[in-house]
Amino acid sequence: MITFRKKCAQFSENPLFTNVIIGLIVVNAILVGLETYSFFINRFHHWFLIADKILLWIFTFEILIRLIGSKSIGSFFKDPWNLFDFVIVASGHLLVGGHYVTVLRILRVLRVLRAISVIPSLRKMVNALIKTIPSMGTIMLLLGIFFYIYAVIGTMMFSSIAPEHFGSLHDSLLTLFQVITLESWASGVMRPILVSEPSSWWYFVTFILAGSFVIVNLFVGVVVGNVEEANREETPTPTDIKLEELQEELKEIKQLLKDK
Amino acid sequence: MITFRKKCAQFSENPLFTNVIIGLIVVNAILVGLETYSFFINRFHHWFLIADKILLWIFTFEILIRLIGSKSIGSFFKDPWNLFDFVIVASGHLLVGGHYVTVLRILRVLRVLRAISVIPSLRKMVNALIKTIPSMGTIMLLLGIFFYIYAVIGTMMFSSIAPEHFGSLHDSLLTLFQVITLESWASGVMRPILVSEPSSWWYFVTFILAGSFVIVNLFVGVVVGNVEEANREETPTPTDIKLEELQEELKEIKQLLKDK
Amino acid sequence: MITFRKKCAQFSENPLFTNVIIGLIVVNAILVGLETYSFFINRFHHWFLIADKILLWIFTFEILIRLIGSKSIGSFFKDPWNLFDFVIVASGHLLVGGHYVTVLRILRVLRVLRAISVIPSLRKMVNALIKTIPSMGTIMLLLGIFFYIYAVIGTMMFSSIAPEHFGSLHDSLLTLFQVITLESWASGVMRPILVSEPSSWWYFVTFILAGSFVIVNLFVGVVVGNVEEANREETPTPTDIKLEELQEELKEIKQLLKDK
Amino acid sequence: MITFRKKCAQFSENPLFTNVIIGLIVVNAILVGLETYSFFINRFHHWFLIADKILLWIFTFEILIRLIGSKSIGSFFKDPWNLFDFVIVASGHLLVGGHYVTVLRILRVLRVLRAISVIPSLRKMVNALIKTIPSMGTIMLLLGIFFYIYAVIGTMMFSSIAPEHFGSLHDSLLTLFQVITLESWASGVMRPILVSEPSSWWYFVTFILAGSFVIVNLFVGVVVGNVEEANREETPTPTDIKLEELQEELKEIKQLLKDK
Repeated sequence: MITFRKKCAQFSENPLFTNVIIGLIVVNAILVGLETYSFFINRFHHWFLIADKILLWIFTFEILIRLIGSKSIGSFFKDPWNLFDFVIVASGHLLVGGHYVTVLRILRVLRVLRAISVIPSLRKMVNALIKTIPSMGTIMLLLGIFFYIYAVIGTMMFSSIAPEHFGSLHDSLLTLFQVITLESWASGVMRPILVSEPSSWWYFVTFILAGSFVIVNLFVGVVVGNVEEANREETPTPTDIKLEELQEELKEIKQLLKDK
Repeated sequence: MITFRKKCAQFSENPLFTNVIIGLIVVNAILVGLETYSFFINRFHHWFLIADKILLWIFTFEILIRLIGSKSIGSFFKDPWNLFDFVIVASGHLLVGGHYVTVLRILRVLRVLRAISVIPSLRKMVNALIKTIPSMGTIMLLLGIFFYIYAVIGTMMFSSIAPEHFGSLHDSLLTLFQVITLESWASGVMRPILVSEPSSWWYFVTFILAGSFVIVNLFVGVVVGNVEEANREETPTPTDIKLEELQEELKEIKQLLKDK
Repeated sequence: MITFRKKCAQFSENPLFTNVIIGLIVVNAILVGLETYSFFINRFHHWFLIADKILLWIFTFEILIRLIGSKSIGSFFKDPWNLFDFVIVASGHLLVGGHYVTVLRILRVLRVLRAISVIPSLRKMVNALIKTIPSMGTIMLLLGIFFYIYAVIGTMMFSSIAPEHFGSLHDSLLTLFQVITLESWASGVMRPILVSEPSSWWYFVTFILAGSFVIVNLFVGVVVGNVEEANREETPTPTDIKLEELQEELKEIKQLLKDK
Repeated sequence: MITFRKKCAQFSENPLFTNVIIGLIVVNAILVGLETYSFFINRFHHWFLIADKILLWIFTFEILIRLIGSKSIGSFFKDPWNLFDFVIVASGHLLVGGHYVTVLRILRVLRVLRAISVIPSLRKMVNALIKTIPSMGTIMLLLGIFFYIYAVIGTMMFSSIAPEHFGSLHDSLLTLFQVITLESWASGVMRPILVSEPSSWWYFVTFILAGSFVIVNLFVGVVVGNVEEANREETPTPTDIKLEELQEELKEIKQLLKDK
């Protein structure tokens, strides 16, 4: 059994194995792309189903091999990317049946995301991106409170004037998201409201000023954080090399003094 | 009396006390959210009023406890956040009556802002954000002059051609704010004016170029300021640690020389 | 004569003198603002004319005093801000007459810009902003070539399909400026063209990608430049202070060695 | 032969030669600009053709001279800018004939790009810009996967509701590019879809949040990279100069100790 596990481990670490899997993910991506064209799906519907079945089983075997090749089941599922791979593939088997056609199609598309878990450089980058999220916690909470208060006030004031934008609390939240992206905030959202309530410009102007101010500071925070991190990881600077030399020289002097 | 004050101080510093208040602010936030849905407000109007009364009184007691627990009334109101809490809660009592329904409803929403004064990390962040405002003083003045001149010229030139955008000085200021956010500046504002005044493109192009140039520099200033501040607050760098070691070594050498 | 010049110099450096001028510039700004409201201009037309005359003559005397107070006429006009002040005020006298009403009104508005030349902090900031312009020379030339080539190609391809956007070379340049600000580039400019030329999406997508890439790099260049400049102007860092101490200590050691 | 080659090399390095070529590129740019105005092209069609022929032959001779003046044909074409110049000019000769009128006109416009290869500062800047592209490889791949998955899902879900935006996979990709630039994403793209599928807001909101998050990080990466590079190329800092002095002093001390 141990030799079989070892073989699986060796097999799963073989670069050819990874490359084949990447190739199959690309094939999977092309297939889900072609399926969106009615020209292909009408003519080759059956072949698409077969190709999908084959791909699903290959991916299943791939994960089984990597699972067997790992030290233990626990250590395999500790890595969230392995868990992600497993869930994506396993749900493909579980949801077979007439009721989940749309879910299954979306699952097939999400399999393309496996490219991230399989290509190391992508995996590293996404890990780095995800790591920056918690540091935004407080500012996201602040933005959340800010959005919520403006949404409640907006619904209170404009729900009867502009029901398509401020009809309910969730409509208002969506509209405020649109406003903060600056998309049609004046021509589409504010100006029709100004017609019946000329003094409500303060609502939009303060929201944009405060919101973009907080967001710019959020971005600045990310920038500063990254610059600092980059500086910390830097290879020794010329200053550090020079200091190293100075220390060496001081040691020599101390030796000279002691020798006397 | 002193023991009672001490008890109040201890009570108000108890983490449980803070957590209960945070919880009640969340309840308050949910209530003002639900009130925007006519489904709830029509059915449970009475209950909303009662819940609001209860919350207002709890918040009143909370502030009273913190006020008694503080060293003096003066020191309590020195902290602008305490003043903010007090004003928000006190005005809830003062404005009771049929005439201020909208004001009262907005006050109830603004009570959600108390989350900032109660949660320490949010409080710290908002303080930091507010601190960066004065450093923008000069550039805001420059932007103000710039906006004002363009608004006067715009009103002079386009008030008869595009009264909905440049009808009066305050309309022009609002339109220029829209233009600087780049929202529909061409399709909605400039192109209809170009039809009757084909040469007025310079007004918009120079405004956008100069305005965004100044704003980008404003943002850059904020970024540079923050990076610098972050650098200043940094923990000792490897260079500093190495220098510390060198100093230590020099002291030893000096001792060696003196001992001889 | 020399004593009169000295008195003028003293007078023009008096902070009260500057503050009065700032006050009058604010009055001038309020007047040009009020003039845009037909309510005021219809009722007080005559008073506005008189106030403007008085202000113009006060500003003339102010510049005369500063001119006399300066070392020589040459040194006075060496400062571009003085030249700016002089031109703004002198042209107010020269253009009197019925033909230049609009020009005169715009001149009166531009007098508000004198706030920049009078308030030192604003003057310093605008000088700093203007100084960053030459460093953008090459990148502006690159952007210019880039805009010109796309404008010529756009006019060649779309002048008959979308004459309102690409009818002539200068129309195309304006449209491309609109596209680079991302305002209605798809809904207003591209999609109507796509209807008759479905393959022309590449024109817009490549323009936006390349243009924003170059502009982001331009901004980054400004940021990097400013950060560097800020670092250069920094007060001594803790590292430098520590090095200073080390040097002091080394000198002591050398003295100890020599004394022996 | 060698003397002729030397003369060509000298000739092509003459600043006058370069300036004349820059002048002719400007003339070429003005001509292609004038050709877009029907006023000029109708009246002087023949003269434009002659001027273009002359310019093409001058540019041909210019490249021939530089080709002969270079060490070998291989070394000449090693520089991609020389290759670019050669292709632009050579294709002008090859495509002569009635069939390629549009291609030839675009080629004539692209000759303006030769300004980049001829003006050294522009050449240096474009080289620097191009060098930053490979460092964006991984993040572009990530964005590509991200766009593809959203495009497939968007086509699956909205192809029947909004055929003008999500009718096919390539339509969806173009629409998503429009959405990521935030142009009319709500008013033009999302809101019409929300009418029939009210729950599809998540598709747009998550796409914008995730997309702009990744892009901001991409930009931050570029900024950080440039700042670091700028720091690396910096001239010695005050810290480094001070360290140099310290090292000098230590050497003196060592000498003093040895001399004893």
